[in-house]
Amino acid sequence: MNQPVNHAVTLRQLSEHLAQQGMACQIEGTDDLPITAVNTLESAGPTEISFLANPRYERLMAETKAGAVIVNKKYEAPRTMRLVRTKDPYAALMASIVYIHGHRQHPQWGIHPQAIVSMTAQLGARANIGPGVTIESDVVIGDDAVIYPGCYIASGCRIGQRVLLYPNVIIYDFSQIGNEVTIHAGTVIGEDGLGYAPVQEQWFKIPQVGRVIIEDQVEIGANCTIDRATLGTTVIGRGSKFSNLIAIGHGTRVGENAMFVAQVGLAGSVQVGKNVQMGGQAGVVGHISIGDHAIIGAKAGVINDVPANEFVLGAPAIKGNDAKRVFMLTHKLPEMKQKIKVLEAEINALRAQMTSFREAMSDGV
Amino acid sequence: MNQPVNHAVTLRQLSEHLAQQGMACQIEGTDDLPITAVNTLESAGPTEISFLANPRYERLMAETKAGAVIVNKKYEAPRTMRLVRTKDPYAALMASIVYIHGHRQHPQWGIHPQAIVSMTAQLGARANIGPGVTIESDVVIGDDAVIYPGCYIASGCRIGQRVLLYPNVIIYDFSQIGNEVTIHAGTVIGEDGLGYAPVQEQWFKIPQVGRVIIEDQVEIGANCTIDRATLGTTVIGRGSKFSNLIAIGHGTRVGENAMFVAQVGLAGSVQVGKNVQMGGQAGVVGHISIGDHAIIGAKAGVINDVPANEFVLGAPAIKGNDAKRVFMLTHKLPEMKQKIKVLEAEINALRAQMTSFREAMSDGV
Amino acid sequence: MNQPVNHAVTLRQLSEHLAQQGMACQIEGTDDLPITAVNTLESAGPTEISFLANPRYERLMAETKAGAVIVNKKYEAPRTMRLVRTKDPYAALMASIVYIHGHRQHPQWGIHPQAIVSMTAQLGARANIGPGVTIESDVVIGDDAVIYPGCYIASGCRIGQRVLLYPNVIIYDFSQIGNEVTIHAGTVIGEDGLGYAPVQEQWFKIPQVGRVIIEDQVEIGANCTIDRATLGTTVIGRGSKFSNLIAIGHGTRVGENAMFVAQVGLAGSVQVGKNVQMGGQAGVVGHISIGDHAIIGAKAGVINDVPANEFVLGAPAIKGNDAKRVFMLTHKLPEMKQKIKVLEAEINALRAQMTSFREAMSDGV
Repeated sequence: MNQPVNHAVTLRQLSEHLAQQGMACQIEGTDDLPITAVNTLESAGPTEISFLANPRYERLMAETKAGAVIVNKKYEAPRTMRLVRTKDPYAALMASIVYIHGHRQHPQWGIHPQAIVSMTAQLGARANIGPGVTIESDVVIGDDAVIYPGCYIASGCRIGQRVLLYPNVIIYDFSQIGNEVTIHAGTVIGEDGLGYAPVQEQWFKIPQVGRVIIEDQVEIGANCTIDRATLGTTVIGRGSKFSNLIAIGHGTRVGENAMFVAQVGLAGSVQVGKNVQMGGQAGVVGHISIGDHAIIGAKAGVINDVPANEFVLGAPAIKGNDAKRVFMLTHKLPEMKQKIKVLEAEINALRAQMTSFREAMSDGV
Repeated sequence: MNQPVNHAVTLRQLSEHLAQQGMACQIEGTDDLPITAVNTLESAGPTEISFLANPRYERLMAETKAGAVIVNKKYEAPRTMRLVRTKDPYAALMASIVYIHGHRQHPQWGIHPQAIVSMTAQLGARANIGPGVTIESDVVIGDDAVIYPGCYIASGCRIGQRVLLYPNVIIYDFSQIGNEVTIHAGTVIGEDGLGYAPVQEQWFKIPQVGRVIIEDQVEIGANCTIDRATLGTTVIGRGSKFSNLIAIGHGTRVGENAMFVAQVGLAGSVQVGKNVQMGGQAGVVGHISIGDHAIIGAKAGVINDVPANEFVLGAPAIKGNDAKRVFMLTHKLPEMKQKIKVLEAEINALRAQMTSFREAMSDGV
Repeated sequence: MNQPVNHAVTLRQLSEHLAQQGMACQIEGTDDLPITAVNTLESAGPTEISFLANPRYERLMAETKAGAVIVNKKYEAPRTMRLVRTKDPYAALMASIVYIHGHRQHPQWGIHPQAIVSMTAQLGARANIGPGVTIESDVVIGDDAVIYPGCYIASGCRIGQRVLLYPNVIIYDFSQIGNEVTIHAGTVIGEDGLGYAPVQEQWFKIPQVGRVIIEDQVEIGANCTIDRATLGTTVIGRGSKFSNLIAIGHGTRVGENAMFVAQVGLAGSVQVGKNVQMGGQAGVVGHISIGDHAIIGAKAGVINDVPANEFVLGAPAIKGNDAKRVFMLTHKLPEMKQKIKVLEAEINALRAQMTSFREAMSDGV
């Protein structure tokens, strides 16, 4: 039930391809099986290849109908089956998917007659623009753009080469999108942030005159929102990957190669270093700095700067190990409360003994 | 101020209808009142019917202008008013809304001339397709589809009968949507998940070749995102109901009759049983199993498997009753700290007594 | 790198303008500098004006290339530079942005030939309606509306004057939008809420026959979702400002001048007073009341009514100061546990002393 295959191969051809990619592997069983798809252990059929990387799924090996399974060097199979042994099964799987399935093929619209392109917009070579796309004045788009139906690109935007915008992506005015950027459906880039000044209990709107820069090779998921800066720029750094429903506040700068899971929210003026990972639903308040290679746990609430290489967890977020210890102790609070009660009783008992003792002494004297 | 009524009735006709539905009721007051709408106690007018189910709103009974109010058998009204007494007022209300107002009527576009339908797409009988809809190659859509303006259905999708897609719904390639599925505006189905392999501190994209299956009678709210599987399928089970801004990760399978409140997020490869309820903003990390009829509290962060029928709460989530006890004790931490300080002082006092005592003894000896 | 300026001025002209607005200021250095934009300290060039309001950014003053910087009366600059001294630099900055940059200019579509406007819809004067907009039957729209491409306005909606809808805004049937309302791209107004009755383990849909009212001067961010009421109305009060990805449940009423940060979620039937602020990712369960001027901290989970003027924090949310104390003590749990262990040992030691003592006594007797 996967997508149709782009490139049918035999198991031997796949194995040779993996070897060329530096992933030597060893086939147990016949190697002339035609491979028509990569699939999960549960769903794979007799001409499909699957994989075992997470021990959690070992139980599926007894019953899988997969024609072959990629496993590590030491794995002991529960029965005779066609195996592809390699050092890193997950990496070999990834390479197999790319080799056999390839990347998504897009419809060919040319510049669709129902696209609206301003006369002052410049489109690069081989522009592939769907129906219902609107491209406003003074937009410049590089070569090989694929822009799905319903996208809107406002005046003054600069869009790089080989950019891929899925349906209904909205890009506000003067945004800059680098080369090889992919943005999934419904994402909004460059909307105004929460920029208001309080005047007599009302909110007075401040024009948001900054921009958004999305650097090269960024991929952004569906229905995200990236505020433009009030002044200056909001930046998503080169090679960063975002999942869905992520909110980035005005003037925030995310470094290279970030990996943000769904529903992450960063307030305004946050500085994020390079190669930072954030778990789902994590949040960061404004004006915070997060160092390179930091890892922010799922649902963390970051209210203090995070040094490089640190792992933080919890809301408010603290060092991951401390947070785990605190969580564990929190769950032992009923026990602790009981212990305090016992100690109290013991102290009372001791005091009583002491008193009766003293009395005995007094009597003795 | 509600929507116009589809079906005007008298109070007697409504009462007879409810009785036919198994909800016997008894009218106090005249029964020939024409009912033009169902409305809240606060907003209802003299030809509208309202209800009292939650005691929280009893105070509104003294002042409501409603022509009649559905109440339970025992309720004592603060004044003379027209009442409809029945065992379960909430159920009777629901049935009244369906009877009097009916479901939303949709515009009739036929296949709008500004819809773009591929020559290789197959539309069922009575297709009602709005302007600005794009349906790509090899899509098959069942009878009685209603597809609002701005929707995009990518190549190879299979869409069932009586499907209702509100404006700007985006369905990526090869997704399967069952019969009688409703999807609200702006929701995205089948976008790529966060599938990247780390290569030298950069992220290398893995084609996401799996699919999404939305089973029959599912309703999904607005601006949700349902990732396609990397391999295999992401599944939303028959009869499940989602609110808005919900994110479902790749390969996650949600069972039948789920009820998810807004902003819930499930990471990838999560297995959710049937009839599971999740409160708003709850999250689940990857590769977790949640048993049938489990209830996940609002804002819970689930990091361990949840057995069937369990109620969990907190982040990280634990059994609901334990969590409540922990929350309560957490809030008593200042008190506990004070208690420990007192115990410490008492111990010091005892120790001092003991010492002075010993000295007295030594002196005595 | 900001947007092009709408209104070029000299520093003197700017200073005079600020004085007229009640923000007297004093220029240190020449006052004939032409100002072409407002910008950040980091990005501003020699004909741009910047500002210093947050001491966190003082370090940037040594290196900024800004032609002039707005500072407070007492600030001591690290070097000779052109300064504009005023009492409230942030307020002066806001006024400068409005004066120099002005608000966004919109494309002029008139009523675009690719907009679909029902014959029974009424458009006000100077309607500016983009391509791909669909306006259904019986919609009434006031003067000076700007409706960007891809918006959908369903039957029976009432839209006020000077309303600004960015691309792909979806407004469900019978919604009411006041004057001078701005809604950012992808936001959905009036979708059905989670209204189902449980019938034999399945969910039975209840028609959602209420409406949404968005009062005057509200601004709503991108990709938000505002449920219509089941009965009655969901209300967003006059002058309220929402960031992105916010979910408002059915029948919830938000008062005037609210300020909600991104990813806030309110369940159904919540009552929010006026001038309430909610931090990012905060959530409120159903049927809660929040008083005027309350402040709900980021990520708070509100499960009890919040009195007017209160600041609450945490999940579940409690008074802000209590929550901070609890957080602090939570982080001291390891220490507390250790302390209890020490007390236990001390009690044991005391008890042992007591025993040996008693034995000595017995021997003595």
